[in-house]
Amino acid sequence: MAAEAGPISKVLIVVAMQTEATPLVSKFKLVEAPAHESTFPKGAPWVRYHGNYKGLHIDLVLPGKDAVFGVDSVGTVSTALVTSFSIQTLKPDLIINAGTAGGFKAKGASIGDVFLASDVAFHDRRIPIPVFDMYGIGARKTFAAPNILKELNLKVGKLSTGDSLDMSPHDEEVILSNDATIKDMEGAAVAYVADMFSTPAIFVKAVTDIVDGEKPTSEEFLQNLIAVTAALDLAVTKVVDFISGKHISDL
Amino acid sequence: MAAEAGPISKVLIVVAMQTEATPLVSKFKLVEAPAHESTFPKGAPWVRYHGNYKGLHIDLVLPGKDAVFGVDSVGTVSTALVTSFSIQTLKPDLIINAGTAGGFKAKGASIGDVFLASDVAFHDRRIPIPVFDMYGIGARKTFAAPNILKELNLKVGKLSTGDSLDMSPHDEEVILSNDATIKDMEGAAVAYVADMFSTPAIFVKAVTDIVDGEKPTSEEFLQNLIAVTAALDLAVTKVVDFISGKHISDL
Repeated sequence: MAAEAGPISKVLIVVAMQTEATPLVSKFKLVEAPAHESTFPKGAPWVRYHGNYKGLHIDLVLPGKDAVFGVDSVGTVSTALVTSFSIQTLKPDLIINAGTAGGFKAKGASIGDVFLASDVAFHDRRIPIPVFDMYGIGARKTFAAPNILKELNLKVGKLSTGDSLDMSPHDEEVILSNDATIKDMEGAAVAYVADMFSTPAIFVKAVTDIVDGEKPTSEEFLQNLIAVTAALDLAVTKVVDFISGKHISDL
Repeated sequence: MAAEAGPISKVLIVVAMQTEATPLVSKFKLVEAPAHESTFPKGAPWVRYHGNYKGLHIDLVLPGKDAVFGVDSVGTVSTALVTSFSIQTLKPDLIINAGTAGGFKAKGASIGDVFLASDVAFHDRRIPIPVFDMYGIGARKTFAAPNILKELNLKVGKLSTGDSLDMSPHDEEVILSNDATIKDMEGAAVAYVADMFSTPAIFVKAVTDIVDGEKPTSEEFLQNLIAVTAALDLAVTKVVDFISGKHISDL
């Protein structure tokens, strides 16, 4: 067993959308890493910002704009890719996956709430063969950070991930079975990669829309994206402030 | 513009399951690369076999056994990860994504048919926001290989990819809209990564089950897996034999 390491030095923040990244880049005074620094392989649209903040080195990465369609490359595949290459090249002590999410009012979520996910799972990987079914769902506990939860007074809930912004009846059935309070498009994929490479990861998710409410998700999502991103960024800043100077075991 | 390169030298075969890999490993007399050769990062369950065959260097990779559940790590995220790290470290001239697929009899597919996919798209990434909707579907033409198609008398059809083995009504709607003849769990993700890193990729898919038939997919899939894998391996061998000594532009 390795001796207890020093305080947390390198934090990797993973977001999916530029809208989620920009206020954090500004808050932490990060600068964009030029493409020729080649942290990332040629051809990948992934973006990295970095800088020092309160004794921490922060890298903030996102999957960037799709080469064909020009929109943020949201979803599990692109985010898993940028996260895994970032872990390999940047060797973070801790990952913070920050982003927006849908919330279930039946489980106590409201617009603007910020959650720390206790568990993650997928809801759109149905493989009805024994054991493969459990692999598809891929439920796992996240790195426990009881002191962050307590200190910052965040809500806690289970997160369910899928590559669709809407929710089909089949998705809903699995989300209920996953006992999820919040629903996103990346979290479980980030957790999968983080666990693979033994890197602690926490999931800070702000609610942009109520999935079990009246309004269509896409409409409510776009209406609330900017305002809720502000709440998300405030929470991420508080988390990073809390982390500064602490050991992993203090979280 | 670069001068025309020499004949194809390095081929990367990507499969999802050990059952699909084993006969090819045997046929091409490949050996498993020991973990300490560190083509892949520590912690990844990905497996690589390699060897020389008829003037080609062949690497065959698969996402390996899930660390928690011990089953093949099928699906888009794991396969995109192993494919992208393989491209970066092995620098193949050509990727062959070989695997089993469901087929639609309404589009002319039968059990045991081997298809070369002309196009790929996703059917389980519904993002009902303009442009994001097209990004989610991610339709793209594959690398055209008219001479392989003609010489080997393969069937041709569009491939639709999703992380579920079954097909929900929502999936079905998108699969129809994708005009797909075959359905798998990895192809469009491999194509996404291959395009990102400008590596030509072809998709050889053998039909294990009829999606629009009477039998449940999982039952038919397991019944036919071994027999159809033999047809798949025969087709892949013929493709590799054809490639030997050829230039990319000859395919």
